Amino acid sequence: MNEFERRSAEINDLLCVLNVLNWDARTQMPAGGSGPRAQQMATVSALAQEKLLDPAYEAAAQAVGGEDVETRAAQQALDAISALKRIPAGLTRELALLKSEAQEVWARARAESDFGLFAPQLTRMVELNQQLAEALGYEGHPYDALLNMYEPGLTVDTLMPLFAQLRAHHVPLLQAIQQRPQPRSDFLNRWYPAAAQKRLSLALAQKFGYDISRGRLDESAHPFEISFTRQDVRITTRIQENFLSGALFGTLHETGHAMYEQGVRPELSRTVLASDLLGLYAVGGASYGTHESQSRLWENRIGRSRAYWDLHFPQLQVAFPEALADVDTAAFHRAVNTVRPSLIRVEADELTYDLHIMLRVELERALIGGELAVKDLPEAWNARIKSDLGLDVPDDARGVLQDIHWSAGMIGSFPTYTIGNVMASQFYAAATQQRPELEATLLRGEYASLREWLTDNIYQHGRTYTPHELLERVTGRGLDPQPYLDYLSGKYGELYGLVASNTAQKEQTL
Amino acid sequence: MNEFERRSAEINDLLCVLNVLNWDARTQMPAGGSGPRAQQMATVSALAQEKLLDPAYEAAAQAVGGEDVETRAAQQALDAISALKRIPAGLTRELALLKSEAQEVWARARAESDFGLFAPQLTRMVELNQQLAEALGYEGHPYDALLNMYEPGLTVDTLMPLFAQLRAHHVPLLQAIQQRPQPRSDFLNRWYPAAAQKRLSLALAQKFGYDISRGRLDESAHPFEISFTRQDVRITTRIQENFLSGALFGTLHETGHAMYEQGVRPELSRTVLASDLLGLYAVGGASYGTHESQSRLWENRIGRSRAYWDLHFPQLQVAFPEALADVDTAAFHRAVNTVRPSLIRVEADELTYDLHIMLRVELERALIGGELAVKDLPEAWNARIKSDLGLDVPDDARGVLQDIHWSAGMIGSFPTYTIGNVMASQFYAAATQQRPELEATLLRGEYASLREWLTDNIYQHGRTYTPHELLERVTGRGLDPQPYLDYLSGKYGELYGLVASNTAQKEQTL
Repeated sequence: MNEFERRSAEINDLLCVLNVLNWDARTQMPAGGSGPRAQQMATVSALAQEKLLDPAYEAAAQAVGGEDVETRAAQQALDAISALKRIPAGLTRELALLKSEAQEVWARARAESDFGLFAPQLTRMVELNQQLAEALGYEGHPYDALLNMYEPGLTVDTLMPLFAQLRAHHVPLLQAIQQRPQPRSDFLNRWYPAAAQKRLSLALAQKFGYDISRGRLDESAHPFEISFTRQDVRITTRIQENFLSGALFGTLHETGHAMYEQGVRPELSRTVLASDLLGLYAVGGASYGTHESQSRLWENRIGRSRAYWDLHFPQLQVAFPEALADVDTAAFHRAVNTVRPSLIRVEADELTYDLHIMLRVELERALIGGELAVKDLPEAWNARIKSDLGLDVPDDARGVLQDIHWSAGMIGSFPTYTIGNVMASQFYAAATQQRPELEATLLRGEYASLREWLTDNIYQHGRTYTPHELLERVTGRGLDPQPYLDYLSGKYGELYGLVASNTAQKEQTL
Repeated sequence: MNEFERRSAEINDLLCVLNVLNWDARTQMPAGGSGPRAQQMATVSALAQEKLLDPAYEAAAQAVGGEDVETRAAQQALDAISALKRIPAGLTRELALLKSEAQEVWARARAESDFGLFAPQLTRMVELNQQLAEALGYEGHPYDALLNMYEPGLTVDTLMPLFAQLRAHHVPLLQAIQQRPQPRSDFLNRWYPAAAQKRLSLALAQKFGYDISRGRLDESAHPFEISFTRQDVRITTRIQENFLSGALFGTLHETGHAMYEQGVRPELSRTVLASDLLGLYAVGGASYGTHESQSRLWENRIGRSRAYWDLHFPQLQVAFPEALADVDTAAFHRAVNTVRPSLIRVEADELTYDLHIMLRVELERALIGGELAVKDLPEAWNARIKSDLGLDVPDDARGVLQDIHWSAGMIGSFPTYTIGNVMASQFYAAATQQRPELEATLLRGEYASLREWLTDNIYQHGRTYTPHELLERVTGRGLDPQPYLDYLSGKYGELYGLVASNTAQKEQTL
């Protein structure tokens, strides 16, 4: 190891340690531990930042030359150092403390469905993120500076036209669907014992290729994936005994994230290319959007396909013989692809999901832009749910308090879910084009072929390439919503009997 | 916070983080995570040491004056700095790495009952501890230097006469007991479902006063207690479905440790007085022996008393109606106080337990002194078990591989178990003398009175006093085995019908 590698490894170790502390706080820690834990995380976070901003590290990065991958690592380190130097140390420390405390308060506020409990923390979180945006700098909107932390290169100016294109597609399609009869889906809300849900979810995750000798599945209020190097990649799920889809598809989703992390080349462990240095976060995926493309691909493209349930529905019936006694594969497949406006993002169908995202993105952009005050947020949220989805929000727990993101300081990350949807379809189209036999292997339940293609083309590279470079390398073009729109139109057109042909479909839904 | 306090808090945070990483590795981590985890722990450990040895920290400690508690904290910091300066940085780092790896290898070796698997790690562990002893310095035996890390001030020269005194008491008492008929204890090996054992163990821990809003109970191969400040103090147990006493008394034991940590004054959190700086370990107890006195006191003095089971046996019968259908309180109390030579330390009765300890202490003293080679250890172990306890060791898992301590680098810690037994009786004698009503409250199952006395006299002080100072303050004298010997003679004399009076008992057993 040279000086740059040695120092990078030390920094990555500290980021992995932060992830362990974070995982523990969200899955294992007793309530009393939250205060000291926040201080412990702040201390480790400050140390990681200190190591990163040590002039000797900058010098070591500048001294790197020659081989391409190491040069990229060094350049990423230099970029992060340059950005972090613009953030006052006090702001970093206060943000770290606030993130830990706010998550605790958010969990309590959500349990009591009382936004007022959480409002002071969120207000401060917005203020600190405004300060952060100013410190980092931006050309257009201050929100751009935050966006850039999750999806390098993405701006409000790129995002809004893309959202408009999606909205122009999704809204008429949703309207068309709402005029068609809905399939049966009552059985998804029967009684599904928690232990069996957890067992089955884990079995399906392993069938996709999640390696539990390097991972584990736990429960938490909000499902997440987190890695402490590729050797220890953990996922969580939220189990509700009267709702099967939550834990089931939630687990398939986190499994997509986890396989990405487990697929990073071993050589990249403990390097900059498995570190989000700007976010002080150990992660192997290229960006949040790229990561989300993998969770979406495995959850939706594979996990909600007819072929998947032709193979796996019998397993489900063995696990839940009573609840599924009068259900067949076709009915199950239709039920889990029902499009129906709903209150909870993580339980939303593929089509309305993007509308949930656009709502959050526009609200957080307004918060950061100073056009919306935190105290007015619940009202704005509820009004938007009403206008977009036609629903009344009965309480904050099912409204503005449902997501952990803002309490975790992740303002600017929501767009990446929809970016992920778009990228997932681009990657899937490229995979099936480059490997014509791929879809036949999936029909046989052989997921290794897809996983290997993704590993070769995406996972192994870690953060070597930017999302844009990766898209260019793999698909030959940049961000392009067309494959995603085609996929949704084709799928729902067929499921809801909207069209007779592809041509007619496009005419009808666009 | 002044400079000394601020730096001390940062160091304590890192030690708490090490404890979290350690707890996770032993209770949650998938096998694949062990390599990176060892590196993460080595990195944090090195950073803590770096902070401790920062000249600015030494200067800040030297600048402390005035108030007594802070002066003590500063002096402890200066003592630790002085000791650590004598240890080469490379040795510290290698020890940290080896500890993490060796625990993993030990767990596998124990599962496969193959000492050969673990021998290379243990050999290196002994070598590194010999180097450590030389670096730290000692007057008599190199083992003294290691002893001192766990029990400040204890030496081979003090320990051996104490052991001789205990042996002179224990061996004849054991012989006398072996000539008496044994009580029934077959029912302890009936089937006790794991979930009910865990539930009951936790309920009894809470009844003692373990606060689970600041703690939790998990399972691990070797039971332990660990704290991340007084706000998050966790315990583990090992559940065997065909052996009730293991998890039950193991949990009461760890509960004693945990209540000590939970009882440290809040003001001492994140200070030197909740840090073992020399051992780079976050802990509130004054020493390992002092800590063990509390686990022993709650497990044995309270948890194995007749009064305790008069109160709690009905709960046990509700939890295990079938297994305990034909058992009454008296039979249960006799069974859990059976003295019978056995192979496993953590399952040993109170009397033979000290013999297990003396065996380990003499072997590790010989390893460190270079008089015994690691390859000869199983044979030496087995021979000693035969001569002391009359038993043949059937395999290494039930012999030399049974304890985690050596793999965790804890050479020199075993004596503290017996020191803890001795201190427990001294403290209990002082408590009942100072609060004459105490035993009456215990008969009513009101454990708060004892816990409060212990908190006032011991727990709250954290590491403010040395073990010797604490004994002097609380009991008016130093280490004194007489209360312990009286307790054992009295208890087993009665249970095994050995004596008619106290006088006769002393004549018979000494």
